[in-house]
Amino acid sequence: MTTASLKRLTAIACGLPALSVFADGLPQLDWEELSKTNPWEYTELHLEVPVVTPGEYGSAPSDAVVLFDGKDLSAWEKTPFGEGVAVDRTEYYLKQYEEGADWGAATWQVENGEIVAGQKQGAIASRQAFGDMQLHIEWQVPVLEGKRGQEYGNSGIFLMGMYEVQVLNSYQNETYSNGQAASIYKQHSPLANASRAPGEWQSFDMIFTAPRFSEKGTLVSPAQLTVLHNGVLVQHNAVLQGPTAFIGEPYYIPHPPKLPLVLQDHDNPVRYRNIWVREL
Amino acid sequence: MTTASLKRLTAIACGLPALSVFADGLPQLDWEELSKTNPWEYTELHLEVPVVTPGEYGSAPSDAVVLFDGKDLSAWEKTPFGEGVAVDRTEYYLKQYEEGADWGAATWQVENGEIVAGQKQGAIASRQAFGDMQLHIEWQVPVLEGKRGQEYGNSGIFLMGMYEVQVLNSYQNETYSNGQAASIYKQHSPLANASRAPGEWQSFDMIFTAPRFSEKGTLVSPAQLTVLHNGVLVQHNAVLQGPTAFIGEPYYIPHPPKLPLVLQDHDNPVRYRNIWVREL
Amino acid sequence: MTTASLKRLTAIACGLPALSVFADGLPQLDWEELSKTNPWEYTELHLEVPVVTPGEYGSAPSDAVVLFDGKDLSAWEKTPFGEGVAVDRTEYYLKQYEEGADWGAATWQVENGEIVAGQKQGAIASRQAFGDMQLHIEWQVPVLEGKRGQEYGNSGIFLMGMYEVQVLNSYQNETYSNGQAASIYKQHSPLANASRAPGEWQSFDMIFTAPRFSEKGTLVSPAQLTVLHNGVLVQHNAVLQGPTAFIGEPYYIPHPPKLPLVLQDHDNPVRYRNIWVREL
Amino acid sequence: MTTASLKRLTAIACGLPALSVFADGLPQLDWEELSKTNPWEYTELHLEVPVVTPGEYGSAPSDAVVLFDGKDLSAWEKTPFGEGVAVDRTEYYLKQYEEGADWGAATWQVENGEIVAGQKQGAIASRQAFGDMQLHIEWQVPVLEGKRGQEYGNSGIFLMGMYEVQVLNSYQNETYSNGQAASIYKQHSPLANASRAPGEWQSFDMIFTAPRFSEKGTLVSPAQLTVLHNGVLVQHNAVLQGPTAFIGEPYYIPHPPKLPLVLQDHDNPVRYRNIWVREL
Repeated sequence: MTTASLKRLTAIACGLPALSVFADGLPQLDWEELSKTNPWEYTELHLEVPVVTPGEYGSAPSDAVVLFDGKDLSAWEKTPFGEGVAVDRTEYYLKQYEEGADWGAATWQVENGEIVAGQKQGAIASRQAFGDMQLHIEWQVPVLEGKRGQEYGNSGIFLMGMYEVQVLNSYQNETYSNGQAASIYKQHSPLANASRAPGEWQSFDMIFTAPRFSEKGTLVSPAQLTVLHNGVLVQHNAVLQGPTAFIGEPYYIPHPPKLPLVLQDHDNPVRYRNIWVREL
Repeated sequence: MTTASLKRLTAIACGLPALSVFADGLPQLDWEELSKTNPWEYTELHLEVPVVTPGEYGSAPSDAVVLFDGKDLSAWEKTPFGEGVAVDRTEYYLKQYEEGADWGAATWQVENGEIVAGQKQGAIASRQAFGDMQLHIEWQVPVLEGKRGQEYGNSGIFLMGMYEVQVLNSYQNETYSNGQAASIYKQHSPLANASRAPGEWQSFDMIFTAPRFSEKGTLVSPAQLTVLHNGVLVQHNAVLQGPTAFIGEPYYIPHPPKLPLVLQDHDNPVRYRNIWVREL
Repeated sequence: MTTASLKRLTAIACGLPALSVFADGLPQLDWEELSKTNPWEYTELHLEVPVVTPGEYGSAPSDAVVLFDGKDLSAWEKTPFGEGVAVDRTEYYLKQYEEGADWGAATWQVENGEIVAGQKQGAIASRQAFGDMQLHIEWQVPVLEGKRGQEYGNSGIFLMGMYEVQVLNSYQNETYSNGQAASIYKQHSPLANASRAPGEWQSFDMIFTAPRFSEKGTLVSPAQLTVLHNGVLVQHNAVLQGPTAFIGEPYYIPHPPKLPLVLQDHDNPVRYRNIWVREL
Repeated sequence: MTTASLKRLTAIACGLPALSVFADGLPQLDWEELSKTNPWEYTELHLEVPVVTPGEYGSAPSDAVVLFDGKDLSAWEKTPFGEGVAVDRTEYYLKQYEEGADWGAATWQVENGEIVAGQKQGAIASRQAFGDMQLHIEWQVPVLEGKRGQEYGNSGIFLMGMYEVQVLNSYQNETYSNGQAASIYKQHSPLANASRAPGEWQSFDMIFTAPRFSEKGTLVSPAQLTVLHNGVLVQHNAVLQGPTAFIGEPYYIPHPPKLPLVLQDHDNPVRYRNIWVREL
């Protein structure tokens, strides 16, 4: 049976065999075709599935938006998001963002095909906004003698500029569990500490579902996040309580369905490379 | 501590105590207030919660859209949705709907403050469109001698004109389980048969989450439905496979976030009353 | 087509038409029956659906466990759960509970077919343990002159002895939003304040999914809760962060799949009636 | 503040400052410590997070169960699961499995450190049973001249012996969409076709949540599956309708929380390597 005839078959309504009720232009039952249908064909679908050429070992698939490919920061700009990590500061920045504020060009450096997180230069945001996405990002904390806890390789990846996945050296470096590498900062400790040592490159693969708000601004469904850290599942459909807050309880504020991806400047020389997003 | 001071507190950023980085207009830390904060206050939120006056025994709360209060069908119109129960017919109607098709006034009767489902008059649709919602609806199948199976009291409630919850007399009346009263038709059998006898009024209380589609038309999250039938949980976050299909496998087609509620004319004299929706 | 033949049909394997590979005792394809199958029958299921006689206006359905029907507290006993509202106290009580601790008989009073919450007598727990459940419970805060905030009608319903839904007079009585009536205490503010005035009876209808832990004690899926307050949806699949905590962040501790339902003594004369549970 | 003092802090109950109600052996409030707590510390957790050494490019992390490392089939045995792909045959095998049936040793070949799927030797099952898991598996379809559709490289990975993710050459090879590579067979078409050409190795990374059944055998939560195919998200929290069925509608049957992983013999010389599972 062909796709076309199967589609026609699927279209047959409840009123069978009173087919005369069908208006012109509507699919008609083809009894001839129908009689040739095998039992197992009734549960076959013929939907269009987009073809994507996969990458190798974390490199970008053909349908990804590449945010950094080793060359320059043209896909990024300066932003105050991801600095405050508190809900009403986020709300304040969000308002400015929606009004079209321009915070200037990204001033972080590119060295050896890698981004070096700014030190006291402020966070950077992707020029393109994203909602539901698959995100791949690689990062490295250089060996820093004498550093420990939250001071050793601190940066962060803020999905939608609001929801932080912690970047930190957590290899033989203790801190609070919901603040270690791959935590959803101050919300979810990772299921495992899959950290590599400082000086080694690490990867995050994330699947993010943006929160939904009704027209009234009510939260209809919260943000959800799955994270693989160096290939190990560390967040499993974690449900977020709201934008990341450093002090106090997080809570949702309504926001647009797409917002920039933000990398945090926490005054530590963390490096990034191979950043791509597939919009879902 | 007041709400205002708590909000200010929540606003404190990561850079503590380097508060001088805060731009003008941004919330400032009030150390005076902060020192008075009790340990248990850090997890208190002061969000605005809308006040709703509840109804009694299923009657409409103060914030509900009342679709039928016993008087007339002014909130309804004629529609071809809910007739076809097959995905590509639904697609066809959807296209017409989005182009502004007018299928005319609802011709079902109102008797004793109740709607009597049409017989061969076609389905009716609410003039207002809904997405995520809490829905209350009451229905009754009159005693019909000699009727059985799908012929005894068949009608249906199509959420968004596409997703059918079956209305049928299932009191001592056998049929296939995913076609009995309170089934999500041809997708989910109910967890319990909580039917009352013909001639008695029954209620459905539903909590519906509309499916989400990306800009590309990809399904991001499927429709979900919880149903209480006469107060008994019969569908528990059931995940829908797509619009209701009578023959073959259902599959999603992208559609607007809000669509009308539809009542099906299955040529059976089912009665409806007390219909209201709370948008979520 | 009969149920039996449909079941046989469903059983047909992939290897068709090489049916000779089927071992003895396995369902065989009945080609005769198969040829009589109508297209729409392929998506009909014939599962067993339990028959439940529904109640009227919140009264117990036939399959419910009635925990209080107006007579006595025989279904309840004394418990320290629900007093501490902090995670490691809960952990401590849990250990004692699993070791079979007996905290004695419930000493709350029954008056006019209603339970009167104890004042300084400690919480009470259902003798039967529950996990996933539908819960109906009615409560009333008497008019108490001069009381306000958390002091006006405070009690609580602890699902599994750990997860509190707040009972409080929230009719024209302000408090923090994640501590008002129908909040999941210190975790989720209600979506609406659907409170009735003191002196009036109110209802909670809850659908609770217990958290799941792996053998290793890892959280596999968090607790989820939906609540209707006086028929109004106030919690919609809210995802819990862990057992209720009064101070600090909640976090999960592994526990058995079933635990008692607990009513809190918060030293306020709250009344309860018509309590029933349907195990899911 | 130390972890111990924070834990003590978290333990403080509602009855503050009436601490005298605490029984011996229960955590006591340390006001001295409490007064030293900084505002941001109230949302820090100190949970134990297991340390896992990650692998490189898909190789097994330190806490994985390695089911095939290139040497032999000692972790596998013969099984009838995954042959029938129909619900009541699955039910029949399940019964035998629970009764301890022994179907004999796996007879598939190992060549060049790869498993070669049997041809008419029947499916193989892991000796160890799994429920919730992260699964990594690599497979390759050799170039087969003259083959097309379901005949080109057909095999399958049956999670819990019941829930099939399709293995097939879907590189420039058409078939029904819910039967192509990375489909959840006859239930969910993949979101993208990320297939590599025949002769190339491909990977599946899966995150699987097993279905939950109540003691009564009711489905409490369905199986859910996320799949990355060659690093591309192709199933995103897909909700399964039940065990894979070749003909007719799938439906759940209650089963144990852990069951073997099964590889299907579909009479095609598909190859497998690098198979590991992390139990969640």
